[in-house]
Amino acid sequence: MDKKNSVFIGVSIDGYIADRNGGLEWLDMIPNTENSDMGYFEFMSEIDALVMGRTTFETVCSFDVAWPYEKPVFVLSSTMHEIPESHKGKAFLVKGSLQDILRQIHEQGFHRIYIDGGTTIQNFLKADLIDEIVISTIPVMLGGGAPLFSDLPQHMEFELVKTRTYLDQINQAHYKRKRT
Amino acid sequence: MDKKNSVFIGVSIDGYIADRNGGLEWLDMIPNTENSDMGYFEFMSEIDALVMGRTTFETVCSFDVAWPYEKPVFVLSSTMHEIPESHKGKAFLVKGSLQDILRQIHEQGFHRIYIDGGTTIQNFLKADLIDEIVISTIPVMLGGGAPLFSDLPQHMEFELVKTRTYLDQINQAHYKRKRT
Repeated sequence: MDKKNSVFIGVSIDGYIADRNGGLEWLDMIPNTENSDMGYFEFMSEIDALVMGRTTFETVCSFDVAWPYEKPVFVLSSTMHEIPESHKGKAFLVKGSLQDILRQIHEQGFHRIYIDGGTTIQNFLKADLIDEIVISTIPVMLGGGAPLFSDLPQHMEFELVKTRTYLDQINQAHYKRKRT
Repeated sequence: MDKKNSVFIGVSIDGYIADRNGGLEWLDMIPNTENSDMGYFEFMSEIDALVMGRTTFETVCSFDVAWPYEKPVFVLSSTMHEIPESHKGKAFLVKGSLQDILRQIHEQGFHRIYIDGGTTIQNFLKADLIDEIVISTIPVMLGGGAPLFSDLPQHMEFELVKTRTYLDQINQAHYKRKRT
């Protein structure tokens, strides 16, 4: 099966994934009366496992909802020693270079990986290891916070595969990395 | 006539309007075989005048083409003393606060203003003086350069008015500022 690393993320017009206080409420500022999943379930149906950083893992753990993932979650951390008892069997600690980590995950039969969390996405992009990225733009400027993007060593071209508008207000663009 | 300040700009996926070397070639990376204006002429038909900073003015002057604007261009600069002889009658120097400058321009009968140039757009956004913004996203990450956005003192909500795809690859989103 073809391997791919994918991103699916909501972002402000000015490119932030969390506001200055780490707040995420703005992600839900558009009333979702039709209960749209904005393509999330379709995206997840083509994913075998997730990779996220410790910060994102702890953020998801702190949400007052049941564990939201049906697929294994690999947590990238150099400081964490163990996955908390509550999440064993669902989340798995991985260490090493991004290439090492991907090899470990691929060897377990997981080939289509959802890369999540600001720093982790940035590190995968820097290493040119992202194959597709689905960006849903919320119509707000936050003016500061955690940026989705950071410096890259080179220009990287993408192909615009699809655009969708959700809830009449959220512009979603689906890009695939163009490799020559 | 209703006053409005509008932005119409091309940007990379990661939010840059020029690359690390000031380069703009990536803006034309998608072959434009159909000679699309990407909505520019329709946008310009609803504009009375332009405001740009000195850097953008000098960049446009350096292009090896005829002066591209049929509408008056107001150049914001604290350091320039005079518009070069070659551009007198087409470009006009303005000084003062953004509010002062807008008042001067409105008094001359120009109400619908195209705000252009990175720093100028950022300063108008900081002062919450932008009413609409049309962003055309080129499917490339530049990884560094001149960013479109900078810090803002507050969250600012917009309404997504329209999206268009140009040349099958350029996702254009048209936002209007939501004021309550």
